[in-house]
Amino acid sequence: MGTLTQMGINAKEAAAQLAVTGVNERNAALKAAAQALLDNRELIKNANQKDIDEAKKNNMKPALLDRLTLTDARIDGMAEGLFQIVQLDDPIGEIESMKQRPNGLMIGKKRVPLGVVAIIYESRPNVTADAFGLTLKSGNAVILRGGSDAINSNMAIVSVLSESLKKSGINPCAVQLITDTDRALVTELMHMNEYVDVIIPRGGAGLIQNVVNNSTVPVIETGTGNCHIYVDETADFDMAKNIIFNAKTQRIGVCNACESLVIHKDIAKEFIPQLVDCLQQKSVEVRGDECALEADNRVVAATEEDWGTEYLDYIISLKTVSSIDEAVAHINKYNTGHSEAIITQNYAHAQQFLNEIDAAAVYVNASTRFTDGFEFGFGAEIGISTQKIHARGPMGLEALTTIKYVIYGNGQIRE
Amino acid sequence: MGTLTQMGINAKEAAAQLAVTGVNERNAALKAAAQALLDNRELIKNANQKDIDEAKKNNMKPALLDRLTLTDARIDGMAEGLFQIVQLDDPIGEIESMKQRPNGLMIGKKRVPLGVVAIIYESRPNVTADAFGLTLKSGNAVILRGGSDAINSNMAIVSVLSESLKKSGINPCAVQLITDTDRALVTELMHMNEYVDVIIPRGGAGLIQNVVNNSTVPVIETGTGNCHIYVDETADFDMAKNIIFNAKTQRIGVCNACESLVIHKDIAKEFIPQLVDCLQQKSVEVRGDECALEADNRVVAATEEDWGTEYLDYIISLKTVSSIDEAVAHINKYNTGHSEAIITQNYAHAQQFLNEIDAAAVYVNASTRFTDGFEFGFGAEIGISTQKIHARGPMGLEALTTIKYVIYGNGQIRE
Repeated sequence: MGTLTQMGINAKEAAAQLAVTGVNERNAALKAAAQALLDNRELIKNANQKDIDEAKKNNMKPALLDRLTLTDARIDGMAEGLFQIVQLDDPIGEIESMKQRPNGLMIGKKRVPLGVVAIIYESRPNVTADAFGLTLKSGNAVILRGGSDAINSNMAIVSVLSESLKKSGINPCAVQLITDTDRALVTELMHMNEYVDVIIPRGGAGLIQNVVNNSTVPVIETGTGNCHIYVDETADFDMAKNIIFNAKTQRIGVCNACESLVIHKDIAKEFIPQLVDCLQQKSVEVRGDECALEADNRVVAATEEDWGTEYLDYIISLKTVSSIDEAVAHINKYNTGHSEAIITQNYAHAQQFLNEIDAAAVYVNASTRFTDGFEFGFGAEIGISTQKIHARGPMGLEALTTIKYVIYGNGQIRE
Repeated sequence: MGTLTQMGINAKEAAAQLAVTGVNERNAALKAAAQALLDNRELIKNANQKDIDEAKKNNMKPALLDRLTLTDARIDGMAEGLFQIVQLDDPIGEIESMKQRPNGLMIGKKRVPLGVVAIIYESRPNVTADAFGLTLKSGNAVILRGGSDAINSNMAIVSVLSESLKKSGINPCAVQLITDTDRALVTELMHMNEYVDVIIPRGGAGLIQNVVNNSTVPVIETGTGNCHIYVDETADFDMAKNIIFNAKTQRIGVCNACESLVIHKDIAKEFIPQLVDCLQQKSVEVRGDECALEADNRVVAATEEDWGTEYLDYIISLKTVSSIDEAVAHINKYNTGHSEAIITQNYAHAQQFLNEIDAAAVYVNASTRFTDGFEFGFGAEIGISTQKIHARGPMGLEALTTIKYVIYGNGQIRE
């Protein structure tokens, strides 16, 4: 039996035990785990130093090196994250819509943990504590596969968490880390249907596509956002510029950043130069169609490829259209089902956009940057789903649950 | 571009149009389609005759031949099924929990169609009309891949339905059938992530496993049911026999039939002979462990394989246990996450079983045969999900929907 199969068996056993814990028990374990992170600060920092030394040897880029580094403040942040998860409502145990059938059967839907969740993610080691906190709170066991760059940090963090669980009387296999960085293990994990209920990949497009294309375990696809903002002919120009500037530049490398603009032709000549002025404050390159080029000579020519590109950079595409119908068609053709916004003062356009755009989050007169579990008021976020089944948009604790039907009878048989 | 890609493009376009229809429009189209099936009765029966002739040439078994045959009564049944779907509540459009965030954003969850649903199923041609009805009612376009045995029947039915849609002003590509019976097309369909939102396989274990193992499109796994009934030491024997007889024999080839018994050792000697008497009325073979063999010499010895087998036949396995903990552990090890029941008069055992068994439907004192969309009061059933994500247990219209977040702002940007 492979090590990974044994981890699956252990995780399933831990999940069965977690499924019958009360929230007080899970919260106490979370608090103890948070304290354990603080108490083992030096151990974690020493392990992290090994990763940093290795990364420097491999000439890791400064931005990535920064993400990898666990400072005192970041360790405090991980512990604080767990304390915050303690404050969230228990997602488990509620029975919805218990109803009596004509034959007397009482049938209700009870919210229960998914069971075993696998999370495959890239470098940032603070994700490790976060994923542990959200899965434990929702009564799930988790199998983690972090980036090989952070392997020493992740091993230290998981060993602290898992030791702490043991002291709290929780099966320590509720959190397990795949420590062998061989990629073949990821493939094996993606086929452990018997032990893993769902896989959530968190990271770049390559990682996510690999999981979507190869996993037989159900996947929740997260991530890619080619988010559009449509400025219609009635838009308030100041509001439009303000929102676009925010959505494009407030944080550049995130999935809810705006990557593509759609602008009504009637306002192109007047609005585009003002917009380019505004975006130039942060040197954003605007790649537009012919009408956009005519409106402002600082716009550079877009190619077909631009309409479908998630830049994650100081670049934005700009398509002009003659009607809201054309705008909706363009967006539904090129979007990735993440977040789309219209800036308008026209009631019918607002409603049409909300109805016809096919995406997880559709906005009127607001920045796409709000698509986020915290901004939506969930108090947590395990990722942003861009698929349609199970969960769509920001996923809070409820996305880590399922239901089971509980049925009370008194001898009913089927006729 | 392949034919299947073109079907995907057509389906996506039809889905976008359907997503903005009102329920009156969808209901009118369903009624017209039901009438069209009745009006084209001869055409459908003639096509079906071709399938029957072919099946006879290939020496199809009588039971399968019967499933394949479309009698007048079955065509009436297909039309009646569509009329019944008209009566169901519209699952689309409701906005749940619209809340105002501190920054004034109004965020709500709107129920919307999935988009394009693909259904891969086996011989019974009446499934064709049923799948069409449920997907159209819920605002989805459907791509159907039926069994090659029923190809002529399915082509006739889909052409009648699709012609009828056209007359109702609905895009006829809302229902499309893959008419080429080449299996390579199923593989292609399972990788059309750009056009297909979800695949639902309906049929035998081989079909379902093929889709689960090979699809990159999200799958809703349906079907296999190794359903258990646990008779604890406090059970009312008459109730237990009655429920077991019903769950095992009322319909033998279905996924919610009971396949495995678990019986407390304290009642084995007294109860098992009574139970075997009862099951012998329908010549059910009982395969038991050593303690069961001792209790009744008509029991035959079970092997390890029996505990995990879905017989779909007049055979049942029987495991004896010393405690409810052991019963729960056995069931959670061998079940397929479908339907499990306890027969008991003990309150604590009932609650423990409901809490600890990991399955879509968990019963106290009732037959597992009730796991069914109609019996649960959903008024429809697209299948019974045995996975944990998206939908679990009997799937009604809501399983064919997703949500999107609609957000009303007035200029909000993220700080």
